Amino acid sequence: MRPKLTDVAEKAGCSPTTVSRVINNYGYISQKTKDRVYAAMRELNYQPNTLARSLQGKQTKMIGVIVPSITNPFFAELVAKIEEQLSDDGYKMILCNAEQDSIKERQYLRMLEANQVDGIIAGSHNLDIEDYRRFGLPIVSFDRDLASSVPIVGSDNYQGGCLASQALVDAGCKHIYFIGNPNKTGNPTFYRFEGYADTMAKANLTVHTARSAFYESPSAKAAALKELLASERKIDGVFCSDDMTAILLLRVAKNLGIKVPEELKVVGFDGTQLIQNYEPDLATIVQPIGDLAGMLVKLLYERIADPSKPLAQNSYLLPVKLLKNQTI
Amino acid sequence: MRPKLTDVAEKAGCSPTTVSRVINNYGYISQKTKDRVYAAMRELNYQPNTLARSLQGKQTKMIGVIVPSITNPFFAELVAKIEEQLSDDGYKMILCNAEQDSIKERQYLRMLEANQVDGIIAGSHNLDIEDYRRFGLPIVSFDRDLASSVPIVGSDNYQGGCLASQALVDAGCKHIYFIGNPNKTGNPTFYRFEGYADTMAKANLTVHTARSAFYESPSAKAAALKELLASERKIDGVFCSDDMTAILLLRVAKNLGIKVPEELKVVGFDGTQLIQNYEPDLATIVQPIGDLAGMLVKLLYERIADPSKPLAQNSYLLPVKLLKNQTI
Repeated sequence: MRPKLTDVAEKAGCSPTTVSRVINNYGYISQKTKDRVYAAMRELNYQPNTLARSLQGKQTKMIGVIVPSITNPFFAELVAKIEEQLSDDGYKMILCNAEQDSIKERQYLRMLEANQVDGIIAGSHNLDIEDYRRFGLPIVSFDRDLASSVPIVGSDNYQGGCLASQALVDAGCKHIYFIGNPNKTGNPTFYRFEGYADTMAKANLTVHTARSAFYESPSAKAAALKELLASERKIDGVFCSDDMTAILLLRVAKNLGIKVPEELKVVGFDGTQLIQNYEPDLATIVQPIGDLAGMLVKLLYERIADPSKPLAQNSYLLPVKLLKNQTI
Repeated sequence: MRPKLTDVAEKAGCSPTTVSRVINNYGYISQKTKDRVYAAMRELNYQPNTLARSLQGKQTKMIGVIVPSITNPFFAELVAKIEEQLSDDGYKMILCNAEQDSIKERQYLRMLEANQVDGIIAGSHNLDIEDYRRFGLPIVSFDRDLASSVPIVGSDNYQGGCLASQALVDAGCKHIYFIGNPNKTGNPTFYRFEGYADTMAKANLTVHTARSAFYESPSAKAAALKELLASERKIDGVFCSDDMTAILLLRVAKNLGIKVPEELKVVGFDGTQLIQNYEPDLATIVQPIGDLAGMLVKLLYERIADPSKPLAQNSYLLPVKLLKNQTI
């Protein structure tokens, strides 16, 4: 049976009025009481009925957006496009910059859970599916499979991996590396790796990988790239699973006297405006950032309008493009 | 006499309950009615009593942050630091990416006016002081003089202009250009220009300026820089009032075969982590982004705690540093 507000009150040892106040963020409630109410809500998997709230006209016209890092140019541009769309439609955006902090992300979800937003766009990768599954509000995920009830929007990472790798093959590369994180399931990078691996197999070339994680510091990444280029002199092509790593690689190659594209060809991934404007030589896979933002927002509105409506489709993969440039 | 809620109701031709609902964003109210109430509030310069609200425990624990562009790395890093600080203190951030859109910025202010945030950090430059003066909530401004009741936090732009220009003088430059926007009063760039101009005067060098506006497209900027470098062959030093312009300049110089730093020395401004990590050769003036964010948030908390308390100080200028690098 679906838990009721009175069940939460009993479990938390307070009055239903207090629970309601915590949920609606109304009146003074001590942090201790709030924590107890939140804990009881979680334990019982209590979900405030958002549809009923919306019929009562209690929409907050606020959307929570959770991203791994807005100082990463890709997420900065995605967030800017999402905010533009929401603002046009009279919504405000509460932004959570989750970094690698799963505690912060969980706290944010808890706050948002407490009835302060109409829905959430989740683009971070810290939490387990379980954390999202018990979540009561409409939610749309960017580039990560959270739960079967949550629609996913992302670029066609597999296609991007194939395009980038095939461009290197077509340019005559024989020892092509993938630099990124090929291991983590559920992470979009994985599909970029699969596209790369399948392309290598078709071309009868060997798969080579060098690990590079999103949150590693640029100087640690640069040191690892230097070691790789210095020790593996046969490398003639690299597909980097993000542009920022590709830029570091170009810099390291230049310092080692390796000529791009003559001795080493490089293709990145993301293709932000920042990269296209300020690193115009870099060949890369361009994600359709405006379309991604538009689709995330549109699907979220549909979930808000009717959270119980079955999904026509769980996953929306938007096509990417190869931007041919001087590094290939 | 201070206008009352009943005055707003009379002016708007609706009941005081409706006005209260609009202000508190509660219950269903048509957009037409909302617009009428907002118009009456503005006309009467009605300000909901935030102190009274806060005593009633009606803090929303939300802060509005308005910036010109989060896709600019400086603002991305500033917003990330502000959000980190707010989140640590249990506040959420509503982010408005104002771009050059003064209509959007005014709409945001109106929404925030309607009682949905505890205060505002304003970092955008679109609106006139008048738009902010009639604003009823606690407000702190980043790098712009909005009104005498609004504290300003910024970097010491004048000191930065002096440091950058003196570094070029010390490196032996004789024909030093300032590239930025030297005209707009109230814009921080202006003080960077003043520091430059005073340094030129002390060194008995002529002031040369080339205009470059924040919102110009990078390709338009690059074309103008190319024309400048191609026509003014005597230029041996440039102080760019932002790093992104400096990067374009370095690229243009490279394409024209002008050697940096032998023939042309360049100093930028901002010194974000992105620049330090990915353009490590660029000499620049480093703004203390973390300290700026901390000061903005701290002052805003003080305004929220007591909006009527006189300001001990109107303007807070934080020191900047010269990062000496290969381009000088």
